Amino acid sequence: MLYKRLPILNWLPRYNSECAVGDLVAGITVGLTVIPQALAYANIAGLSTEYGLYSSFLGPIVYIFLGSCKDVPVGPSAISALMTFQAIRGYGPEYAIMLCLLTGIVMLLMGLFGLGFLLDFVSGPVASGFTSAVALIIVTSQVKDILGIKASGNTFVETWTSLFKDIHNTQGWDAMLGVVCIAVLLILRIIGTLKIEPNHESEELTTVQKLVNKFVWLIGTARNAILVIVCGFIGYSFCLNGEPPFKVIGHVPQGLPSVKLPPFGYESNNNGTLTTHSFGEIISNLGSAIIVVPLIAILENIAVCKAFANGKMVDATQEFIAIGICNIANSFVQAFPSTGSLSRSAVNNASGVRTPLGGLYTGILVILALLFFTPYFYYIPKATLAGIIIAAVIFMVEVKVVKPMWRSKKSDLLLGFATFIACLVLALEIGILVGIGINMLFILYHAARPKITVEKNLSKENTEYLMLTPDRCLIFPSVDYVRNLVTKHSLRQAIPVVIDCSHIYGADYTAATVIEILTQDFAARDQPLFFYNLKPSVCAVFEGLCPKDFVVFYNEDHIDQLLKDRSYVRKEKDVMSV
Amino acid sequence: MLYKRLPILNWLPRYNSECAVGDLVAGITVGLTVIPQALAYANIAGLSTEYGLYSSFLGPIVYIFLGSCKDVPVGPSAISALMTFQAIRGYGPEYAIMLCLLTGIVMLLMGLFGLGFLLDFVSGPVASGFTSAVALIIVTSQVKDILGIKASGNTFVETWTSLFKDIHNTQGWDAMLGVVCIAVLLILRIIGTLKIEPNHESEELTTVQKLVNKFVWLIGTARNAILVIVCGFIGYSFCLNGEPPFKVIGHVPQGLPSVKLPPFGYESNNNGTLTTHSFGEIISNLGSAIIVVPLIAILENIAVCKAFANGKMVDATQEFIAIGICNIANSFVQAFPSTGSLSRSAVNNASGVRTPLGGLYTGILVILALLFFTPYFYYIPKATLAGIIIAAVIFMVEVKVVKPMWRSKKSDLLLGFATFIACLVLALEIGILVGIGINMLFILYHAARPKITVEKNLSKENTEYLMLTPDRCLIFPSVDYVRNLVTKHSLRQAIPVVIDCSHIYGADYTAATVIEILTQDFAARDQPLFFYNLKPSVCAVFEGLCPKDFVVFYNEDHIDQLLKDRSYVRKEKDVMSV
Repeated sequence: MLYKRLPILNWLPRYNSECAVGDLVAGITVGLTVIPQALAYANIAGLSTEYGLYSSFLGPIVYIFLGSCKDVPVGPSAISALMTFQAIRGYGPEYAIMLCLLTGIVMLLMGLFGLGFLLDFVSGPVASGFTSAVALIIVTSQVKDILGIKASGNTFVETWTSLFKDIHNTQGWDAMLGVVCIAVLLILRIIGTLKIEPNHESEELTTVQKLVNKFVWLIGTARNAILVIVCGFIGYSFCLNGEPPFKVIGHVPQGLPSVKLPPFGYESNNNGTLTTHSFGEIISNLGSAIIVVPLIAILENIAVCKAFANGKMVDATQEFIAIGICNIANSFVQAFPSTGSLSRSAVNNASGVRTPLGGLYTGILVILALLFFTPYFYYIPKATLAGIIIAAVIFMVEVKVVKPMWRSKKSDLLLGFATFIACLVLALEIGILVGIGINMLFILYHAARPKITVEKNLSKENTEYLMLTPDRCLIFPSVDYVRNLVTKHSLRQAIPVVIDCSHIYGADYTAATVIEILTQDFAARDQPLFFYNLKPSVCAVFEGLCPKDFVVFYNEDHIDQLLKDRSYVRKEKDVMSV
Repeated sequence: MLYKRLPILNWLPRYNSECAVGDLVAGITVGLTVIPQALAYANIAGLSTEYGLYSSFLGPIVYIFLGSCKDVPVGPSAISALMTFQAIRGYGPEYAIMLCLLTGIVMLLMGLFGLGFLLDFVSGPVASGFTSAVALIIVTSQVKDILGIKASGNTFVETWTSLFKDIHNTQGWDAMLGVVCIAVLLILRIIGTLKIEPNHESEELTTVQKLVNKFVWLIGTARNAILVIVCGFIGYSFCLNGEPPFKVIGHVPQGLPSVKLPPFGYESNNNGTLTTHSFGEIISNLGSAIIVVPLIAILENIAVCKAFANGKMVDATQEFIAIGICNIANSFVQAFPSTGSLSRSAVNNASGVRTPLGGLYTGILVILALLFFTPYFYYIPKATLAGIIIAAVIFMVEVKVVKPMWRSKKSDLLLGFATFIACLVLALEIGILVGIGINMLFILYHAARPKITVEKNLSKENTEYLMLTPDRCLIFPSVDYVRNLVTKHSLRQAIPVVIDCSHIYGADYTAATVIEILTQDFAARDQPLFFYNLKPSVCAVFEGLCPKDFVVFYNEDHIDQLLKDRSYVRKEKDVMSV
């Protein structure tokens, strides 16, 4: 149990120099990715830049002790940032920090109470529709920085409406810089995948060729960091000659955040008027986000774990606990909700990470950035950060699943599309709930409308009988439907009826009442009715209501005997009533 | 089609004198039941007495043309009256009339759009819990009239709280009269079931004995009418000598209601201040009742039809349309929502009704009452009406289902109890929705957690393999769970694995993705994985994603051949990679 809940105990004793090198390289590479991402994601969350960095250093360090998946670099993700933005509705960083605490607590509680199964109710199509919508909304949120204009709004539609109102103020320099940044990133992304291949399978690469491969890969992986540094220098050189022609990030407070309790209540000063925000108010303003944000965040994290599990099982409960505690800890250093991000974990994995200890170096790198580099962040153009975000998230629009989904199940494609639209038009959390709701209706419909196979069979002694085989379990929404079908078929052909219960794995009281009525109806018509292959558990449910009247058999050969017994009983009855 | 939608065309051509006698007797007997019920139910609905009568004459006449079930006497029922009371929240009869119109429209639309399946989602336990709660709430609502005190409140708890506040004002006369009425009614109810039985089965009853039986039955059936008449006389004689010592109904407007459009908007005069109620306001105040009231009302009606269907199928769609149009028509004569009531239909059936034409006589009787008898209704004591209601509805508390439910399925008993409590504590419509919601969770849980049987089998050629048999369909909430189980068992025993898909009748895209991952995992481990008895429809879903990699077979004898083929492929691969 202790080994399960403190996974560090499993790998630390076996830690060796090879692991150390792998973790160091991976940790630093991830660090180079996480710093520009942190700046950009803070922008998505609608917070000032430093909060992205505050969210990025403690999580990976806490995760070393609790995390069960070596590839997860805990930190802000595009999805968590966007959900935070929509949840705090412009109320400022205090709300984001409280959301971080509550997210952590909810995750931890879900882990402790085994509520991880809730994630099972988010199906592939719903997740794809949601993620694609998130990507489009994030792109939308960044367009204003690319164009250097002003815009606001919570949903996709609102933001675009707002954008079009101010589009005439488009700034040429910002727009040019943004477009160039996106182009450069996309090109570097492609370059990063290039490799010198050996001419024949048997040939080995030379050391130089290997080094070139590594270098090209590094350029591709660190493209965000490279772009930020280059554009930062450009911004700096413009600033030396006065105001730059494009918008820059501006002042980022230097130093680590002060460690303090999350703001359970606070006063905000809005142009001289003091407003008090009580704990209850914060909770009620955050609303359903308190449940939905942790669910979505942990969903992303589990998806990361699964992607790199290589067929091994993912301990979802442990991840709930680990990410939950990371977020709780983070809320003491003024962070917004974070989780394992898919883009960074791919970098982590490709950089050869061996254990969660890689997170230590990532954390140290972010701390160093906070201590020493923040003055230089001043000069980073806003359009560059927007470009980094856009170039990353457009690949989250899951166009590639459309074709297999169409081939596999068309209704699932429709569902995915419905979720996508709902997430764009409504708030994200409502959108995904709509998708999940529709999907649950599928299940309910499945339960309500079983298929029944009707066959006319001949027994060994050449008696004709009707074999009715429902293909799934008998529970309340389906029983009237089944009863009607059985009645229809058995009225049409007045021969003995056998209900094949092989596929009926469960039943309830409502089913039992209907079986009771069915047996009574058949008895009134004097038509034999037998139940074949009824599972003992289901039989117990039926017997609670109609103990005597219904006949079960388990061997098809017995049907002749049953028919004989039955006519014997009937004859005896006739004799008695004479 | 026309015959289906106008059921009168089926029976009218075959109508004969025997039918006419049966319908006349039944129609009048039901009329004698419906008049006191109408007075009493108006009281439950919180409306003045005449509205009960307004609701009782047009419905049965319209139903003659459209109704598919001869035993249904359309009119106010205890449940519909209580739902109306809770829905209109003291806003007055205009709201009740609009609710009647909307109820009718919603029913009609549901019938036309085939939404009758929604009723399937109200299971036996939920219905029992709901009905029992309704009965207790109605009893509660009548206690104030029995005791002659004042009380208000919408839910069970509120009403009892209010009752206890005014209990010191209990009026002796009212209380005594009420208790005596209840006792008389219960005794008459028992007397009504007594019968002179022949001594031997072969003996026939004499004509006198038969007449005595009929008379006793009539006394039992018309007990409400008898009591109302007797108590009305008592009230009248007290009134001759001044104020009676108990409360009486008071003035009931004489004559038929004026036929007019339902009040889409109206002005109310509250102590001199005029308030305007717009259509939108009425709709928003009625809220979810607009959906729940028609559903519950039609549910009661369908239950009535089923109870007297004798194993024949009930045309639910036609009932939706018929009761819907009855309510729409009723809303033009200032009625509140009505439906087929179980108590009256039992009387109807026992009185020998043959066709829905019995409703004509019931309707005429109510019209006569409105035209000529309303002055006499003045003297009916309120406690008598309350007694009639209580003596009727206490039998709606379904204590008798507790034992079979306990024997059949204990979780269903819990569910029924939960619904019962929810209906008492919350508003009725919320209470039943809570019950339905919990019940749906059962289905979702069923879908999410299939059982998997694990067997180690020997093939004909003595190869060991693992046979895994999931017992139900593979859809999104269960697939990860199934994948984990399959992985766990197949890792433990590194032998070929066969997944028996005999019980899998459906799958979706999410299942296909997981099957794809499973086949990849098995391929990576070089462990054979086969699918046995996969239905073609399910196979098509899987093949949308993983067309080549997964092997299906339909004959258990083939497994040896499959294993041989597979090792052959593997050997070839090995040769190639050397």
